[in-house]
Amino acid sequence: MTDLKNDIFLRALLRQPVPYTPVWMMRQAGRYLPEYRATRQRAGSFLNLCRTPELACEVTLQPLERFPLDAAILFSDILTVPDAMGLGLYFTEGEGPAFERPVRTERAIRALAVPDMADLGYVMDAVALIRRELAGRVPLIGFSGSPWTLATYMVEGGSAKQFARIKTLLFDRPALLHQLLDKLAKAVTAYLNAQVESGAQALMLFDTWGGVLRPQDYEQFSLAYMRQVIAGLIRGVQGIRVPVILFTKGGGQWLSRMATTGCDALGVDWTMDLGDARAQTKGRVALQGNLDPCVLYASPERIRAEVAAVLESYGTGSGHVFNLGHGIHPDTPPDHAAVLVEAVHELSPAYHECSA
Amino acid sequence: MTDLKNDIFLRALLRQPVPYTPVWMMRQAGRYLPEYRATRQRAGSFLNLCRTPELACEVTLQPLERFPLDAAILFSDILTVPDAMGLGLYFTEGEGPAFERPVRTERAIRALAVPDMADLGYVMDAVALIRRELAGRVPLIGFSGSPWTLATYMVEGGSAKQFARIKTLLFDRPALLHQLLDKLAKAVTAYLNAQVESGAQALMLFDTWGGVLRPQDYEQFSLAYMRQVIAGLIRGVQGIRVPVILFTKGGGQWLSRMATTGCDALGVDWTMDLGDARAQTKGRVALQGNLDPCVLYASPERIRAEVAAVLESYGTGSGHVFNLGHGIHPDTPPDHAAVLVEAVHELSPAYHECSA
Repeated sequence: MTDLKNDIFLRALLRQPVPYTPVWMMRQAGRYLPEYRATRQRAGSFLNLCRTPELACEVTLQPLERFPLDAAILFSDILTVPDAMGLGLYFTEGEGPAFERPVRTERAIRALAVPDMADLGYVMDAVALIRRELAGRVPLIGFSGSPWTLATYMVEGGSAKQFARIKTLLFDRPALLHQLLDKLAKAVTAYLNAQVESGAQALMLFDTWGGVLRPQDYEQFSLAYMRQVIAGLIRGVQGIRVPVILFTKGGGQWLSRMATTGCDALGVDWTMDLGDARAQTKGRVALQGNLDPCVLYASPERIRAEVAAVLESYGTGSGHVFNLGHGIHPDTPPDHAAVLVEAVHELSPAYHECSA
Repeated sequence: MTDLKNDIFLRALLRQPVPYTPVWMMRQAGRYLPEYRATRQRAGSFLNLCRTPELACEVTLQPLERFPLDAAILFSDILTVPDAMGLGLYFTEGEGPAFERPVRTERAIRALAVPDMADLGYVMDAVALIRRELAGRVPLIGFSGSPWTLATYMVEGGSAKQFARIKTLLFDRPALLHQLLDKLAKAVTAYLNAQVESGAQALMLFDTWGGVLRPQDYEQFSLAYMRQVIAGLIRGVQGIRVPVILFTKGGGQWLSRMATTGCDALGVDWTMDLGDARAQTKGRVALQGNLDPCVLYASPERIRAEVAAVLESYGTGSGHVFNLGHGIHPDTPPDHAAVLVEAVHELSPAYHECSA
């Protein structure tokens, strides 16, 4: 299919026959790994880690040295795009991301422009470097926050609990919010396409906060703009498809609508049975998920049993990418992540006819 | 039906004809009201406010002085039961509730006993006093946290983000967790029955954290124990039914299973269309909800339009209690809550045939 030594992940996303179920873990490069914490310390700050391609590459590859994962994912922050739009991203200890200049007025929204991708060159340099360093071991996933999710941070000024400011905008000034989302959809499209041009072989849209919306608002203010992004993406490079995964946290009720966006796969969290999700989406898309990351606090025996249960809930045939239903927790024992990866590789061939 | 001057709320819960849709708001007695903040300050601490029947009564009645609400709800904390079990409840500024003695070992779980209701006498005194002061204006709702929700605080030691400790117990020691939940179900049953004996005319079970579970675990570790509680409740006083409302935050996917517990009504949050919820539950239960509390940040015109949309989504006929989909936010302008209540009373008669 490519120069890839292992393209099982890409084939599963396209629902092509595979010998086993591929596996990666959301936030697989992260704080639960001591080697990540060491690099993070050397970097001085989280932002410096994201902005230094060599360091971003280093932490991207760390989990692959430990575990036989079937995909790598670019290490970056979801707020790089608003930062490049001039909002001034910074991080406070324990409080998470924040913006120096949140976007709250009509004037501020009108003044926003789709950023020059040159200002995000450090991301593209990281993608290119990781791709080179991977040397075809496994595919590299690029990603972005969804337009709605980026907008929540831009309007709230950082992490929010109730989303008071953006929902007030949604209820009182919907046309203005649509302007903001349209700009973000264009920015996210350009950002993801630049990642593909730099070497990303699959893409994931993280809609972290779509689940706080009412169904009709999810459709209009989140899903519509993800649809717009997907419609504008480069979907193949040299004849090889670049699959797109869509993940709305808490979006289990809306999977059948999400499956109509043109994406190749949907991320599913653990509040939904994977078999039900498969039935609801009628085989139109692949599914990625959905082990509760808290399972990794349990004993190795229990982790194996829960991996088996997730494989069984999806059932036989291709179209399943094993993953957690949410990012791996920072206090997870790395050895338990190893048990997960091993169990998927050991137990999943029984669900596939193809023997590589 | 009783000596009640307004029993519309009780009749709607039993899906009996009503002239209009009754309305109350979760956390209607609370921080958004300046008069609440004044009483809270006089009380010295939140716990003292909960533990002094005169003060609990005072804040319970405050929203009814402002708005023509169709029900009152006991002002209390959901953690009174574990506190009476000896865990030592305390509150830290900005961090929420915590326990001095969390329950984390087999020994600690075995040592727990269903509390003597005399130790919760301050709650029963508050219920009796509120009922007397209400003098039949509207019904009084008693409440408790669900066994699963109480267990999360007891095992985690306070508010949790990932529920690491209780989920580790769930995965590694399920039988032990079942023991804890069984004790809690017995305690919650006794607690709610004592509230009914003291004057509560309807009951609500808050399953605040059921939504963090996998479907099969929700069934076994949360729903099963709510079923057990409901089966043990006094369901009528002097021939008058005491309706029970069940609310699992984020439980929209499981409504049809929740409707089989023997409850009279289900709380629904705004991530689900009320018409869909009605179709899924096939008229077996009444529905309570589901305006996004963030709508109350919007303009009065928009609030009215959103109230109209919720009424329309439920449709015609009885069985709807208007409410927010979650507690009212502390920074809500009280005048906006007034607009909500007025709009429900003004717009809802069109959805009911009965003209009082």
